[in-house]
Amino acid sequence: MINIDLNCDMGESFGEWKLGFDEEAMPFVSSVNIACGFHASDPLTIRKTVVLAKRYGVAVGAHPGFHDLVGFGRRRITATPAEIQADVIYQIGAVLGFCRAEGVPLQHVKVHGALYNMAEKDFAVASAIAEAIKAVDPKLYMLCLANSAMTEAAKQTGIPFVEEAFADRAYNADGTLVSSRLPGAVLHDAQSIAERVLTMAKKKTTIAIDGTEIPILAQTICVHGDNPDAVVMVRTIRKRLEQEGIRVAPFGLSR
Amino acid sequence: MINIDLNCDMGESFGEWKLGFDEEAMPFVSSVNIACGFHASDPLTIRKTVVLAKRYGVAVGAHPGFHDLVGFGRRRITATPAEIQADVIYQIGAVLGFCRAEGVPLQHVKVHGALYNMAEKDFAVASAIAEAIKAVDPKLYMLCLANSAMTEAAKQTGIPFVEEAFADRAYNADGTLVSSRLPGAVLHDAQSIAERVLTMAKKKTTIAIDGTEIPILAQTICVHGDNPDAVVMVRTIRKRLEQEGIRVAPFGLSR
Amino acid sequence: MINIDLNCDMGESFGEWKLGFDEEAMPFVSSVNIACGFHASDPLTIRKTVVLAKRYGVAVGAHPGFHDLVGFGRRRITATPAEIQADVIYQIGAVLGFCRAEGVPLQHVKVHGALYNMAEKDFAVASAIAEAIKAVDPKLYMLCLANSAMTEAAKQTGIPFVEEAFADRAYNADGTLVSSRLPGAVLHDAQSIAERVLTMAKKKTTIAIDGTEIPILAQTICVHGDNPDAVVMVRTIRKRLEQEGIRVAPFGLSR
Amino acid sequence: MINIDLNCDMGESFGEWKLGFDEEAMPFVSSVNIACGFHASDPLTIRKTVVLAKRYGVAVGAHPGFHDLVGFGRRRITATPAEIQADVIYQIGAVLGFCRAEGVPLQHVKVHGALYNMAEKDFAVASAIAEAIKAVDPKLYMLCLANSAMTEAAKQTGIPFVEEAFADRAYNADGTLVSSRLPGAVLHDAQSIAERVLTMAKKKTTIAIDGTEIPILAQTICVHGDNPDAVVMVRTIRKRLEQEGIRVAPFGLSR
Repeated sequence: MINIDLNCDMGESFGEWKLGFDEEAMPFVSSVNIACGFHASDPLTIRKTVVLAKRYGVAVGAHPGFHDLVGFGRRRITATPAEIQADVIYQIGAVLGFCRAEGVPLQHVKVHGALYNMAEKDFAVASAIAEAIKAVDPKLYMLCLANSAMTEAAKQTGIPFVEEAFADRAYNADGTLVSSRLPGAVLHDAQSIAERVLTMAKKKTTIAIDGTEIPILAQTICVHGDNPDAVVMVRTIRKRLEQEGIRVAPFGLSR
Repeated sequence: MINIDLNCDMGESFGEWKLGFDEEAMPFVSSVNIACGFHASDPLTIRKTVVLAKRYGVAVGAHPGFHDLVGFGRRRITATPAEIQADVIYQIGAVLGFCRAEGVPLQHVKVHGALYNMAEKDFAVASAIAEAIKAVDPKLYMLCLANSAMTEAAKQTGIPFVEEAFADRAYNADGTLVSSRLPGAVLHDAQSIAERVLTMAKKKTTIAIDGTEIPILAQTICVHGDNPDAVVMVRTIRKRLEQEGIRVAPFGLSR
Repeated sequence: MINIDLNCDMGESFGEWKLGFDEEAMPFVSSVNIACGFHASDPLTIRKTVVLAKRYGVAVGAHPGFHDLVGFGRRRITATPAEIQADVIYQIGAVLGFCRAEGVPLQHVKVHGALYNMAEKDFAVASAIAEAIKAVDPKLYMLCLANSAMTEAAKQTGIPFVEEAFADRAYNADGTLVSSRLPGAVLHDAQSIAERVLTMAKKKTTIAIDGTEIPILAQTICVHGDNPDAVVMVRTIRKRLEQEGIRVAPFGLSR
Repeated sequence: MINIDLNCDMGESFGEWKLGFDEEAMPFVSSVNIACGFHASDPLTIRKTVVLAKRYGVAVGAHPGFHDLVGFGRRRITATPAEIQADVIYQIGAVLGFCRAEGVPLQHVKVHGALYNMAEKDFAVASAIAEAIKAVDPKLYMLCLANSAMTEAAKQTGIPFVEEAFADRAYNADGTLVSSRLPGAVLHDAQSIAERVLTMAKKKTTIAIDGTEIPILAQTICVHGDNPDAVVMVRTIRKRLEQEGIRVAPFGLSR
């Protein structure tokens, strides 16, 4: 039987401000990346999101980012590797506190926004993240962009990792993502996206923007739940996968 | 053999701003309460403080406070018990992350400033704290003011706790602290303070402000390390206790 | 001709997080209270809100609150009068910067949330606010709850002030607001609320919760724009007032 | 008579955390750059610093930085020019509030840390800052690094500006600063630094690191007050200048 994981950022509300459709999207995903209070979320929101994940049997991950609420962690900050490592340990620990409070395991860590973008190519940043994960718990998975410095750092650090592909993003023929500033970079049609995800899960390939078929080695597919259309999309993806007998399940349990 | 613990707030620097004489005071205490980033401290500072405690065999505790950096956690905030509970879980988790990173156990939790003051008398607040501790790890000690709502909450919640006395504070005949706004409330002479602590450790009593001898049931004595005089004081206390054959050791290990 | 002002809190978004229907509600109000970045808002949001107000000829006010983003300024903090005064000066100054940038006058200051609630009854808090306003510009209006410590403080400080009534709140026979925890405290029917506001503007009275007619001396009526129903309500109020020939205009210009 | 200005960063304490020797250094400088609460300072600290400057007849400037307290504004953040402009308007406004409260004029704006470093070479950043200054008050001076993108932006924006030289930094033969990572970049001897400043003020030249004499066109010299040695240095500089009959005075008043 083929297994695939669908991972989704959640817990991105902050105090009075609501963001995302966590309740609506949770039933359709298998893993969540929960914001840790530095770029989004707050203690009550983290707790609520862990409780919601538990209710649906969804695996919990920490989603650390830069300490930049007003910029939502999307702005690069020239932090040192030591600062990044400490920031990531702090944020994993905070989410771990809520996992223990609710009696659920912490499955993985996926970094957010500008920190993710920096870790794609900057090995020192990626290593700082991998070392932070290992320091808190060497059995935690690092969720990496496929073929990035993240994967390399996870390997060298000796921690388990999975690689992710993106449901709604176009790929270049070399397996890299089409820059989000280019036309056609982001896909919008739920049905055709569901087919792409199905192909990723079954054949481990996708059709690149130039029409060629390329390999995609991903144990988890990144989906979204931050608007009503995204909820429709993730439901469509889940349904299509299950129609074809593919099991949507957390990577940490399906191994 | 008589054991006593000396606990001290540490890790109160924040980014560029230094506070406290952690390096100087660490050799003389047996337990530290490390600020968790809400009222003071930051990830790098927490890490450095845990490393320093480990070097001297000092037991680590989390020191959660209100999320009020500019007020140093000393201003009361009308947070709900649910908010307090989540804030405390988050902060314990964050420090726990660094304890795991450095391979040291987390011994206890002592709340800070206005949160401590509120928990002295407000059972709902004290219970929120006790429940937070239990949620993260039911074997963590709650460090309580003797005869306060904290002690009551720890008992009802069913978690281990210790009670603290203050080295440099005067006591009323009923065992409560003399209000810090009254003359004579805070003691300053290192030598006489060391004698008081010795009496607390050996005889489990102290001389109240009216001259009567009253019982003091404390497993740990709160000392300070935030200025050079305080460092002299804690060194004097430690030396005096050891002269009398009393062992200064973390309460969590001496039981 | 009768003039009345409709004031509304705006600029309550924060970074990525949107709150309120500022664009929809702006055409129907005459004064706005713009959050200043301590309990909500951020520099870009303040600027955008000032620009929007300018487009509709709506008068701008600063809306300072406690520095508590996660609590949205709704939690009381035991700040000293000196701290409150400095916090309010800082926040007024920040909004004033944007008023100068956009070439619009700053009309007034209305404090937010817990700070408003504290200033209702605590004269020291109300005076700190009034002194802060006077310090920045003695011609700025203080927007006060009628018959509160705020009004008293504005009078003693010698700054201009206006008093507000609430469109959607029930009143006791003594002119105080029915506690929002009691049934019937908050009104919901747009049409009847519009009639109440009309009576407040024309007759300077309202019908209290016990059915008696009581005097309401208000130069400005507080309305809301934070949800679609609120937008309908404020549009209904505006239309009803104009049908009766009452001019909705900023108090600062109508005097 | 020759005039020169000595400018110094001040108001860098934050809440409980003290930084700098503002009281000791204030008597010897003529202009201060006051941190605005984003990278350091808080409302009470800004107020205290404005009051202190007023007492000594020292001209007040705003010192805006990135919103990064834990990084002290020293880490570059990839903010957009629109974000930078709004952040700078906000911070100038906040300090302006305190200037009005204390009845002192606001003389200038000098950006801090990473924002200063970015504005040295990035014209878009420098322009955003210049436009922000102009928006709040077109008569405010922009304090620029000599021969940088800042100067260019101030000119193109049409606002008054002054250029600064550094008392304790070595210069390359082309008039740029020797990188602070290179040996000899930072000077330490108070007496020889005072001589250099004297030469800068009188001859408008300095001796570069290669021994050649180069022109230095600066209306203001940046000095420090953040440690006891720095206080000795600024006192020595001031004394030496006055011995030679040079008047140390704010540039905004000496023109």
